[in-house]
Amino acid sequence: MKIAVLGTGTVGRALAGKLAELGHQVTIGTRDVAATLARTEPDGMGGPPFRDWHAANPHIDLAAYAEAAADADLVVNATHGAGSIEALEAAGRDDLAGVLVMDVANPLDFSAGMPPSLFVCNTDSLGEQIQRRFPDAHVVKTLNTMSASVMIDPGRVGGGDHSVFVSGDNTEAKRRVAELLTAMGHTDVIDLGDITTARGPEMYLPLWLRLFGALGMPLLNIKVVR
Amino acid sequence: MKIAVLGTGTVGRALAGKLAELGHQVTIGTRDVAATLARTEPDGMGGPPFRDWHAANPHIDLAAYAEAAADADLVVNATHGAGSIEALEAAGRDDLAGVLVMDVANPLDFSAGMPPSLFVCNTDSLGEQIQRRFPDAHVVKTLNTMSASVMIDPGRVGGGDHSVFVSGDNTEAKRRVAELLTAMGHTDVIDLGDITTARGPEMYLPLWLRLFGALGMPLLNIKVVR
Repeated sequence: MKIAVLGTGTVGRALAGKLAELGHQVTIGTRDVAATLARTEPDGMGGPPFRDWHAANPHIDLAAYAEAAADADLVVNATHGAGSIEALEAAGRDDLAGVLVMDVANPLDFSAGMPPSLFVCNTDSLGEQIQRRFPDAHVVKTLNTMSASVMIDPGRVGGGDHSVFVSGDNTEAKRRVAELLTAMGHTDVIDLGDITTARGPEMYLPLWLRLFGALGMPLLNIKVVR
Repeated sequence: MKIAVLGTGTVGRALAGKLAELGHQVTIGTRDVAATLARTEPDGMGGPPFRDWHAANPHIDLAAYAEAAADADLVVNATHGAGSIEALEAAGRDDLAGVLVMDVANPLDFSAGMPPSLFVCNTDSLGEQIQRRFPDAHVVKTLNTMSASVMIDPGRVGGGDHSVFVSGDNTEAKRRVAELLTAMGHTDVIDLGDITTARGPEMYLPLWLRLFGALGMPLLNIKVVR
């Protein structure tokens, strides 16, 4: 499948690498290719600059949002939550009509320091905002409840015995995403329902952030025991 | 230990029964004893009226909030979130100075229908509101992340292999609550930190509500796998 991963940060890199490893043709989308490749300082999470990662992963293309998404079967939103709509608008051929959009972003608001709060929650969610802005896209919220390393290698935590959620209005889109999650090693994919259910996993983030703080590491996930 | 459980609903009854079974002297607190005993209709969750439950559990006293809490070593807030501060004010000898308050309530807002949203979240929590109103009480947020039946009988779900959280400013208060949780059968008590961390487990509720909806039953809990 041709996949555009929007976002050059930790999550975008991790997903792009994993999806390429699974045999997909992956292009990473960014706002400004030249600017992305020109940066020499560590990224926001302290990781190496993108150009170093790109040099080590030459099989993964880098392109502007629109070019990356031009003929993609799947668009992955791995941008910062605050920039997601803008990135998708830049990527958005025909307003993403009929396109499968896997949204893994969180609506994090760092304006009041750490831990961040959410810029949308409770009666709305980032997943819903994206679906409303692109009403003909098939938006599926998933994977936002864990760190990038756990997203792409669930076996690193508890032998992989933990849960991942999907929320979306389109059943076939959720089935395709679940298939991808299974290929990535996830063993317990829970369909929460329509896109409004994205409020649940997005509002879980504040608990995840406290667990990260209390346990001192991000290699964790939750298993829904039932 | 002398325990006052504020609230006559499903959660209050369950906790009162379990704590009495563990050998504690339990009094259930209510706003108006006569009115509580006069009700003959099912309670808000469709359970039997309180007086039927009370007749079957005569070893558990019923008293007005202030009387129930008068010499209690522990006050359990099992009232509706929207009525919690008022109930604690009614119970509040010396503004609950030095009293251990175990807060298991959720700030649920049913005004826009089901599933409920939260009336406080993101940058504040019910646990913090209670602690601010009663600055000398030792407030510990816990157990709000599961249904009453799982609170008091964790073994009913996955053999009890799942997690419960405590948030509070006072270490000794959290230790006492953790001891109680362990006595109730909980095996994985995670100390999230100070009372501001109550935002995490309270904001988890919207996910719990969607899991309840998707799985069709409330006999579930999360295990923090790490």
